[in-house]
Amino acid sequence: MNMSGFERGMINPSAMISPNAVIGQNVTIGAHTIIYDNVHIGDNSIIGPHCILGEPAAEYYSQMDYQNPPLSISERAIIRSGSIIYSGSVIGPDFETGHRVCVREKTKIGKNCRIGTLSDIQGDCILGDYVRIHGNVQVGQKSKIGNFVWVYPYTVLTNDPYPPSNIIMGVEIGDYSVIATKSVLLPGIKIGKDSLVGAMSLVRHDVPDETVVIGNPAKNLGSIHHIFNTQPGMEGNQMYPWREHFERGMPWQGIGYQQWKLMLQKKDHNV
Amino acid sequence: MNMSGFERGMINPSAMISPNAVIGQNVTIGAHTIIYDNVHIGDNSIIGPHCILGEPAAEYYSQMDYQNPPLSISERAIIRSGSIIYSGSVIGPDFETGHRVCVREKTKIGKNCRIGTLSDIQGDCILGDYVRIHGNVQVGQKSKIGNFVWVYPYTVLTNDPYPPSNIIMGVEIGDYSVIATKSVLLPGIKIGKDSLVGAMSLVRHDVPDETVVIGNPAKNLGSIHHIFNTQPGMEGNQMYPWREHFERGMPWQGIGYQQWKLMLQKKDHNV
Amino acid sequence: MNMSGFERGMINPSAMISPNAVIGQNVTIGAHTIIYDNVHIGDNSIIGPHCILGEPAAEYYSQMDYQNPPLSISERAIIRSGSIIYSGSVIGPDFETGHRVCVREKTKIGKNCRIGTLSDIQGDCILGDYVRIHGNVQVGQKSKIGNFVWVYPYTVLTNDPYPPSNIIMGVEIGDYSVIATKSVLLPGIKIGKDSLVGAMSLVRHDVPDETVVIGNPAKNLGSIHHIFNTQPGMEGNQMYPWREHFERGMPWQGIGYQQWKLMLQKKDHNV
Repeated sequence: MNMSGFERGMINPSAMISPNAVIGQNVTIGAHTIIYDNVHIGDNSIIGPHCILGEPAAEYYSQMDYQNPPLSISERAIIRSGSIIYSGSVIGPDFETGHRVCVREKTKIGKNCRIGTLSDIQGDCILGDYVRIHGNVQVGQKSKIGNFVWVYPYTVLTNDPYPPSNIIMGVEIGDYSVIATKSVLLPGIKIGKDSLVGAMSLVRHDVPDETVVIGNPAKNLGSIHHIFNTQPGMEGNQMYPWREHFERGMPWQGIGYQQWKLMLQKKDHNV
Repeated sequence: MNMSGFERGMINPSAMISPNAVIGQNVTIGAHTIIYDNVHIGDNSIIGPHCILGEPAAEYYSQMDYQNPPLSISERAIIRSGSIIYSGSVIGPDFETGHRVCVREKTKIGKNCRIGTLSDIQGDCILGDYVRIHGNVQVGQKSKIGNFVWVYPYTVLTNDPYPPSNIIMGVEIGDYSVIATKSVLLPGIKIGKDSLVGAMSLVRHDVPDETVVIGNPAKNLGSIHHIFNTQPGMEGNQMYPWREHFERGMPWQGIGYQQWKLMLQKKDHNV
Repeated sequence: MNMSGFERGMINPSAMISPNAVIGQNVTIGAHTIIYDNVHIGDNSIIGPHCILGEPAAEYYSQMDYQNPPLSISERAIIRSGSIIYSGSVIGPDFETGHRVCVREKTKIGKNCRIGTLSDIQGDCILGDYVRIHGNVQVGQKSKIGNFVWVYPYTVLTNDPYPPSNIIMGVEIGDYSVIATKSVLLPGIKIGKDSLVGAMSLVRHDVPDETVVIGNPAKNLGSIHHIFNTQPGMEGNQMYPWREHFERGMPWQGIGYQQWKLMLQKKDHNV
């Protein structure tokens, strides 16, 4: 039995799709979703109800000859209900969102990224591959997020050092780093690779690779290698870098990070 | 005069309702709302526009034979516009939400609960009776919230002690406790009964009954009985436990908590 | 070329508009938007899709003879998709919102105000002119915000000193003040004019004019005049009061604040 009202591979009759949009093969589109001019959706994608794809940029409101720049969403996207994706962005394959996500213009998102319910990517951002952004995160303009980065709920990547000013200094987060719940990264802050920002931190200084910081203001607690599990039965296990023990949804699922890396190196060597 | 477009007891013609949903007597359903398979809505409920009830769980996207588990919403619900309630949950009578609330699967909600605008109950949670969750709260999976608990805006109940990991440790909050604005409760934390977590606290340790904690990290300030009103004309009044002086919407409204408790005890004794 | 589905000056046929609403000249209304009884929309406004204007107040759910009080939105509003504005408020000209903003009843908003995506004005509030509220801000009931005030993301203006209680003490913010990201202003707090609250502050005491506070709890750091730019090429520039160097979207754009103020004084003098 198929879901009544959200049948796979079907475009709900109440969806409104611009004649200037290009919809791939076997795409599902939910009720009341709006797809504006110049949107391209890859094959086998599922778009929930009440979404808006190709939302016009600010110029729509002031320029009478405004035309939507292209929005490209690659194959196998799962975009849950109520999400709004602006025109003028490029999104890689296997993209997945929660509900009511907003992604603004001039954003480049790599492959296999997930963005949680109510999060807001404010435009002119770069996200690498396998980025995991949980719900209610605000990623300010000009942010650069590496590969395999995790950002937990209600975190804010800011960009204006003297609000309000005309200076925009985006935050940068290195590969494999983790920003825990409700942290604020101040404008222009650089977080290294494999680092960890603890919950509710206000990060005012750059964070080196493989480093833990926490607090308001955040203090350097040393190396991530000194974080050990305290759960019964797992006491003493090193918990970071997380890629050594966490596999779900990652390209090394089933083989482990080290094996995957070896395979990648071998592949690169052969080519 | 009745509201044009949201007439009581009417199902707006633009709503899309699965033939496999069961709608009670005298239910109002607003425009563009979607009700999927296997949703049961109790009598005299009012569902606002742009809602989705019976949202499919994650398995919908991977299993071709997916069927929606039942969602049961009891009588007299008021669900405001844009709210999304997943299939596979059970919600007691007199449930009320703000706008754009999200309640995910496998959640059990007692009677007379209210959840504010944009709050997100992330699934596999238990809420008691008369719980008041204000707006923008995130209740992580496996959370257990007692009866008469208040949770204020932007509070997060977390569950992963070493993000990202495969460990899920839900937070527990005891009856009558209050979590003030923008607090974070770390994974597995237990808050006792009648306790108070002050605004913007990061709670890292369990909180005993009748105890105030506040700060980042939270510190124990002692007994809730030592919090006195400083407002002119009310100086020196004990403000906690709040149930002794606050009645609005509570089952003891008009008679006071002590009288209500005596009546309950008498009733139990007679039965 | 015009945007297919969001043509300027057109009311999308899927919008539902009460016969008791008054729509001005050259108003654009997007798909699936609902406009209830007694809403007045000024000329040349653009209302995005999926909006609700004239949302009924709480009394709708309990009073069978409920009638919507008027909602007045002045000319040239830009209200982005998914926004909900309650009946019973008055909004000045050139109002602009992000997506999914919520403005509740009995609120008075001056001219040229902007409210960002997902922010929630909880009713019975006063906002002056040229107020800039970024995304995900929660403005509690009874708040009073002056002119030219900036409030950054995830900030909360609270109002209940002993939650839950029946006391409501709104926050007041003076002209030209700035509240940075993720701050909490406790109930009844008064922020003076030209002041600055730093990111992630918990403000427990009133803040005098021209004063910087920061921290959890917030500490007084002294005068705003001692904040100097540290960016290369701009070292030593005084950054506050911001009105001396920031002009975008302000009435002094192109002439500077001082010149604008002189013009105003001259105008007042002549009248």
